[in-house]
Amino acid sequence: MNPKCYSVIIAGGKGTRFWPLSRSQRPKQLLKILSRKSLIVETADRIMTLSGLERTMVVTVADQLSALRKELPKLPRGNFLAEPQGKNTAPCIGLAALEVVARSPDAVMVILPADHWVKDIHAFRKSIGSAVDLAMRHDTLVTIGIRPDYPETGYGYIVKGRLFGGKSGAAYQVKRFTEKPSISVAQRLIRQGSLWNSGIFVWKASLLLELLQRYQPKIAQALEQIKTATRGKSLGAPSPQIRNVVAREYKKVPNISIDYAVLEKAGSEGKVLTLEADFGWSDVGSWDAVYRMLPHDQNGNAGNGKWLARGAKNSLIHAEDRLVVLLGVEDTVVVDTPDALLVGNIKRSQEVRELVEDLNNKGYGAYTVK
Amino acid sequence: MNPKCYSVIIAGGKGTRFWPLSRSQRPKQLLKILSRKSLIVETADRIMTLSGLERTMVVTVADQLSALRKELPKLPRGNFLAEPQGKNTAPCIGLAALEVVARSPDAVMVILPADHWVKDIHAFRKSIGSAVDLAMRHDTLVTIGIRPDYPETGYGYIVKGRLFGGKSGAAYQVKRFTEKPSISVAQRLIRQGSLWNSGIFVWKASLLLELLQRYQPKIAQALEQIKTATRGKSLGAPSPQIRNVVAREYKKVPNISIDYAVLEKAGSEGKVLTLEADFGWSDVGSWDAVYRMLPHDQNGNAGNGKWLARGAKNSLIHAEDRLVVLLGVEDTVVVDTPDALLVGNIKRSQEVRELVEDLNNKGYGAYTVK
Repeated sequence: MNPKCYSVIIAGGKGTRFWPLSRSQRPKQLLKILSRKSLIVETADRIMTLSGLERTMVVTVADQLSALRKELPKLPRGNFLAEPQGKNTAPCIGLAALEVVARSPDAVMVILPADHWVKDIHAFRKSIGSAVDLAMRHDTLVTIGIRPDYPETGYGYIVKGRLFGGKSGAAYQVKRFTEKPSISVAQRLIRQGSLWNSGIFVWKASLLLELLQRYQPKIAQALEQIKTATRGKSLGAPSPQIRNVVAREYKKVPNISIDYAVLEKAGSEGKVLTLEADFGWSDVGSWDAVYRMLPHDQNGNAGNGKWLARGAKNSLIHAEDRLVVLLGVEDTVVVDTPDALLVGNIKRSQEVRELVEDLNNKGYGAYTVK
Repeated sequence: MNPKCYSVIIAGGKGTRFWPLSRSQRPKQLLKILSRKSLIVETADRIMTLSGLERTMVVTVADQLSALRKELPKLPRGNFLAEPQGKNTAPCIGLAALEVVARSPDAVMVILPADHWVKDIHAFRKSIGSAVDLAMRHDTLVTIGIRPDYPETGYGYIVKGRLFGGKSGAAYQVKRFTEKPSISVAQRLIRQGSLWNSGIFVWKASLLLELLQRYQPKIAQALEQIKTATRGKSLGAPSPQIRNVVAREYKKVPNISIDYAVLEKAGSEGKVLTLEADFGWSDVGSWDAVYRMLPHDQNGNAGNGKWLARGAKNSLIHAEDRLVVLLGVEDTVVVDTPDALLVGNIKRSQEVRELVEDLNNKGYGAYTVK
């Protein structure tokens, strides 16, 4: 463990694309899709050797706070930071940086989305360790870049520049970020050696606050107001007065991702490194991603719970209490929950988001994610 | 109403192909697939104007008796005949003929499977009325032949011979019966004007008993023993002693359909007529038949219960208490029950029978039809 290293788990998402499993009161990070543990518990377990319970933090939105505390009961209550509302990742990471600096002015923070899948936990820990070293020694922004398995069009890509340092074979200057490319662009990016942008970032909290001042003055001002209110003390378990200040300031900050707010700008100035990694990773974005990650039988079917298939191929079954039986279907996802059932073409998993809109519009809002 | 006319509803089937809706304790004739009424209630309602409550009978197997009495509470208890075990339709119809003759020696019996669908109830009643007239006046076996809608390979066909009588344009000698043809044979049969064999038969009970004596001496002997035991009285609500005789005799009779046992043989001797009818009919054999009968929306989807579809086509949804949502699937049947769910390719509906075998073999017998 590194006493100068904090982990920050970002857990504000809804996971609409995992309907009907995800609901307003059961966001994606609480789902047990890939194992008997929820995604956020998997994430916390993965990082525990690095930062321990004392230095692992969770940032979430106020209405998920109590559910997340229940899910991670060993984490100190003061390590949960609640945003009054979701404003994308830049304000969220800024708030976490303020907290880290308050606790340890020159600490490195490892930012981890709560809902990712990692195959090789040892390789993961080794990569994060190298990234922490880089960030600590060179005072730079480090992103974890994943060697792609296939031309995914739902991810962002990192175009690598010069090899950094020379000693560490895995670190490169970031030349450019490319969001969600077309399939042909994704194929070209892979041929050129570009990496998936994992959304896992490592940097000194103080450096991030500096860069926010430079690139995002509105966010920096809001953070400054919050810091004044806390007098540089912890934001965990805040007083009602401090909660009011945070709520007031959050109304003013733009809704913006850390990628657009800081990384793209710093990258174009040559200030971002990427650490190339290959630990088996997915952002678990939709049911087709889950299908890819689960083990398959000889007919390409994957599932959990009680299920049986006859003449069915390449299908995903999520069964809970009931018996699910497939007959002669292909590329089908079946997600069974106590009150709602989804039967879909797995290749159209991305559309679940629009499907939830349809449900809200047609009077089935009680069944959805809002 | 015709006091010389009895209706006999045959209700012994299991309906395995309607799994997971059909179960051991909920056979096909009790299912509410097509309306808010079960198939057997629809059947009884359809025939009530012809034979009334007093002369409408139900033949079933012993373990379905109490469920059927509950389903048709107005029918006199003595009008339910229970077979000790299923032995296909010939023994069952023979038993009913014995009962009809005991009540009215020269009466006509109309034999109706409990699980059919009829679209035009007035046309149906008119056809049955004509068939009863024919059977009464000419002492002949009459089958209802349905003008085919499409080359169904799951049905039996009736090849028409000479027009009968000349007055009634709709009655023909039966030239030949053809069971479940290939698709090309079915197409040729339709071009030649052949009819679907509906399994609805009309004849004098006494004539049927005569023909059983001639073609099926084992069945005739068993019926003779039963008649001796009852001394020519009703078989409805029998004494334990008579039940024992029926059980003993049923062990001796062959398992054979009325088609093979009597109709084919009598037909080849020119003794069977078919009344051509066009009242909209289906034997509701499997989920694809149900799909054809239900009204469809503009995307070809049909269903009942709470359901919603996005980009789905030509699919059938049977929802009960839960919300069923389809995304981008085609030709899919979804049948949702409280403890088991089927998601299938509707074109493979016939295979549900084998699927139930699979379930029994793999330890899921508690969910099936046995």
